[in-house]
Amino acid sequence: MRCRGAETQALFNLAREIGIGFYLGYAELTVEAGIVRRYNTSILVDRSGAIVARYRKVHLPGHAEHEPWRKFQHLEKRYFEPGSGFGVTEAFGGVMGMAICNDRRWSETYRVMGLQGVEMVMIGYNTPVHNPPAPEHDDLSLFHNHLVMQAGAYQNGTFVVGVAKAGIEEGVDHVGGSCIIAPSGEIIARCTTKGDEIALARCDLDLCNSYKRTTFNFDVHRQPRAYGPIVERKGVTIMADGTPVRPKG
Amino acid sequence: MRCRGAETQALFNLAREIGIGFYLGYAELTVEAGIVRRYNTSILVDRSGAIVARYRKVHLPGHAEHEPWRKFQHLEKRYFEPGSGFGVTEAFGGVMGMAICNDRRWSETYRVMGLQGVEMVMIGYNTPVHNPPAPEHDDLSLFHNHLVMQAGAYQNGTFVVGVAKAGIEEGVDHVGGSCIIAPSGEIIARCTTKGDEIALARCDLDLCNSYKRTTFNFDVHRQPRAYGPIVERKGVTIMADGTPVRPKG
Repeated sequence: MRCRGAETQALFNLAREIGIGFYLGYAELTVEAGIVRRYNTSILVDRSGAIVARYRKVHLPGHAEHEPWRKFQHLEKRYFEPGSGFGVTEAFGGVMGMAICNDRRWSETYRVMGLQGVEMVMIGYNTPVHNPPAPEHDDLSLFHNHLVMQAGAYQNGTFVVGVAKAGIEEGVDHVGGSCIIAPSGEIIARCTTKGDEIALARCDLDLCNSYKRTTFNFDVHRQPRAYGPIVERKGVTIMADGTPVRPKG
Repeated sequence: MRCRGAETQALFNLAREIGIGFYLGYAELTVEAGIVRRYNTSILVDRSGAIVARYRKVHLPGHAEHEPWRKFQHLEKRYFEPGSGFGVTEAFGGVMGMAICNDRRWSETYRVMGLQGVEMVMIGYNTPVHNPPAPEHDDLSLFHNHLVMQAGAYQNGTFVVGVAKAGIEEGVDHVGGSCIIAPSGEIIARCTTKGDEIALARCDLDLCNSYKRTTFNFDVHRQPRAYGPIVERKGVTIMADGTPVRPKG
């Protein structure tokens, strides 16, 4: 779908009318050089109703084939291809970034934007309470949700805004926990129900400097020469180029 | 100093006698190719009293010159040079890693070891409650301490053991909060005083698989092509090779 069609035009109109921008996630169908492509995408719309940034989800969770043993399917790897990276945009008087859902569990998401001076990372997520491959994580789902966003905020001196689709959809119960997190890592506003709810916080972007200029002054303290494996290999057994890692010795 | 001298031999003897290994941090003075070098170093000693691994601190905090306005100095950048990276070692029936103090605040620390299959990261830390450049962080020091280690554990499916020098030393009050963290990110044991105290937990390293094979199955879910900036630049204004980042446009 297009991000700006008959279904969504009212959002753009209202943004302009009341002077409030928004983040919108959608399934993107596009044709690039004659090839049909599908991405899990979000856009950032400013208070004038103009699209100022687009982001395509990098970390696609789930699986690519139907797996009948699951209570429900999670076929993001079937229907989408991953985006190429994380950018930032000057908007709303600061440096804005976006991520989507599973991206928030990966420290690289925040760091790549932190290295571009991000001051607010906006994240939409639809996360089932139940994780079929690891049901032993179910009762920790909200704890993990906040842990990763709070760490990402603190470690990069940025606000993080996480917004959940909460409650039951097609029989699947989703976690809530929408929240606004300060650069200190503290949650400064959050929702506590599974219904429609608004969480509101004053976000003074200058508070980022308290962390960006001290503990997390990257220019002074980071040591990129020690980080090579992060880009040189994909996992424990596969290199970034898809070949197997050679066993030791 | 040497890690195994008259002052520390008793530790090695006791390790062998009671069959319990240990992690030991020390200031390392060494000569490499005729050049005197100083590192902030730790070693891992197995239950036979043998040194099985050595780690040199990568992330040196503080400053290199005397700054009289501070209540106390933090001259790690003056007295040490950074180590080159994070390795892992097979010991204690699993894959062990080490870090020191400020390393624990950096997500790269855990990830580089996670990419080598680490199952337990051991971290010693001496952290003043008061942070002279950012006193507004003081009351969050324990929160930050646990946040970063819990996130590092969860995001890499590894145990993390953080051990503090707690209480007052040379007039400076240090945070405690020594803890053992499971791959779930949950704190499963911790100290609650500033005195000598032992925290004990059974660490079944196979629990790491619950995370390493699902949500954090790196081979399936990581996207290294999106992580370039992590190694290509040091900070927001300086490239990894020390040259300035070109301004936009």
